[in-house]
Amino acid sequence: MNLLLFEASELSQQGELRISGTRARHMLEVWKIQLGSDVRVGCIDGAMGMASVVAIDGEHVQLRARLTGAPPARPRVDLIMALPRPKVLKRLWAPLASLGIGTIALTNASRVERFYFDSHALSPEVVRERLLDGLAQARDTIVPRVEVRHRLKPFVEDELDQLFPEARRLLADPVYERSITQTPSEARVVLALGPEGGWTPYERDLFERNGFVGIGLGPRALRSDTAAIVLTAMAHETIRVAQKRG
Amino acid sequence: MNLLLFEASELSQQGELRISGTRARHMLEVWKIQLGSDVRVGCIDGAMGMASVVAIDGEHVQLRARLTGAPPARPRVDLIMALPRPKVLKRLWAPLASLGIGTIALTNASRVERFYFDSHALSPEVVRERLLDGLAQARDTIVPRVEVRHRLKPFVEDELDQLFPEARRLLADPVYERSITQTPSEARVVLALGPEGGWTPYERDLFERNGFVGIGLGPRALRSDTAAIVLTAMAHETIRVAQKRG
Repeated sequence: MNLLLFEASELSQQGELRISGTRARHMLEVWKIQLGSDVRVGCIDGAMGMASVVAIDGEHVQLRARLTGAPPARPRVDLIMALPRPKVLKRLWAPLASLGIGTIALTNASRVERFYFDSHALSPEVVRERLLDGLAQARDTIVPRVEVRHRLKPFVEDELDQLFPEARRLLADPVYERSITQTPSEARVVLALGPEGGWTPYERDLFERNGFVGIGLGPRALRSDTAAIVLTAMAHETIRVAQKRG
Repeated sequence: MNLLLFEASELSQQGELRISGTRARHMLEVWKIQLGSDVRVGCIDGAMGMASVVAIDGEHVQLRARLTGAPPARPRVDLIMALPRPKVLKRLWAPLASLGIGTIALTNASRVERFYFDSHALSPEVVRERLLDGLAQARDTIVPRVEVRHRLKPFVEDELDQLFPEARRLLADPVYERSITQTPSEARVVLALGPEGGWTPYERDLFERNGFVGIGLGPRALRSDTAAIVLTAMAHETIRVAQKRG
């Protein structure tokens, strides 16, 4: 945790925060705050700034916030992912949020098992808690949007223009040789990442007909969480490099 | 598991393997092998090839191996890492092995806690089991070498030329702006990755005096396991791109 995140409803009209529970313990035990300490704070989906510790009362910490920073921009990378195994998905929320994702769309695919959709790893509380962990790590406040789709074809054919306008569309699969860093970038990127075992030829064709360019990650078969982390980071990298070049 | 790994000692003089336990269950339940099925096999630290199922006897699977492939090359990326928290380290062995690492050197640093060195996550059995998981995922047989060093300074000053000859030396830390994909690559890369909170100025200076060039991963603070995965993948990517350019 590198940022104390709070809900807008936690902020009093006087600009004060009363924090308890895990966040308070982290401030006391890891940050070792004292009366008068300044800490970085961020309002979830809102502005960032600093806050001073004005009272410590057992397990409660009282802070006075100065939210002078603008809200961070929504990250420029979005991810479409064939719904992974629950265990893998659960591990993935925090690192993806830390790397910066605008929207995560989880979809069905041939090689996705139906029961994955009923998993605890998709419950709103689990998802939000882990996304906030990742944001607090990376000092961001903008919670990634999460979309879940049970049917791939209508999603790809009908929803992409609205969900991911003006984004470079990249389809990740082991069959492709081209690497993401050698693919011309644009201001935004949307990555489509297949299930373990990859997209089927039918699915690849569906994405390609809808403007996706295939990319691979080299000859080694990666687990889908490793691939998602690597591709998200590389997509950010290509955008950064393109922007530096002007 | 995309490859059945076995120890050289498991192979009979007739070229047969008798596999039981987790690996046999995986072949039976996930790969759904039958008599006559062909599976990919690899001898740990040795050659790869195929094997045919010649008998299935309860929980035992008997295979006849044809190790026609050469052993894979040792990966071109090595990693020096300030010893991470045990929980983080445990999660990291398999993805690092799947991405491809020649040598992993875990070192002390100012911001490393002493008790990390006594962790279960460093026990040879845990390390090997998880490294083999990663290799079986990526279809590789070459087990990364693991080195543990309690003193950073003599390690950096005296051991690098021997452990990592002719490698491009890169030091990852949030203070650096330059990105790894914009850094000229060579045939091998050794990455030095700091603890949570980064290397100290003294440590950065030590690495820089010993030929390391600083690189960063952008403005977001990542957990050290996420950073290790991303940097390892990007190091491979820069080598691949440089080789394609010839």
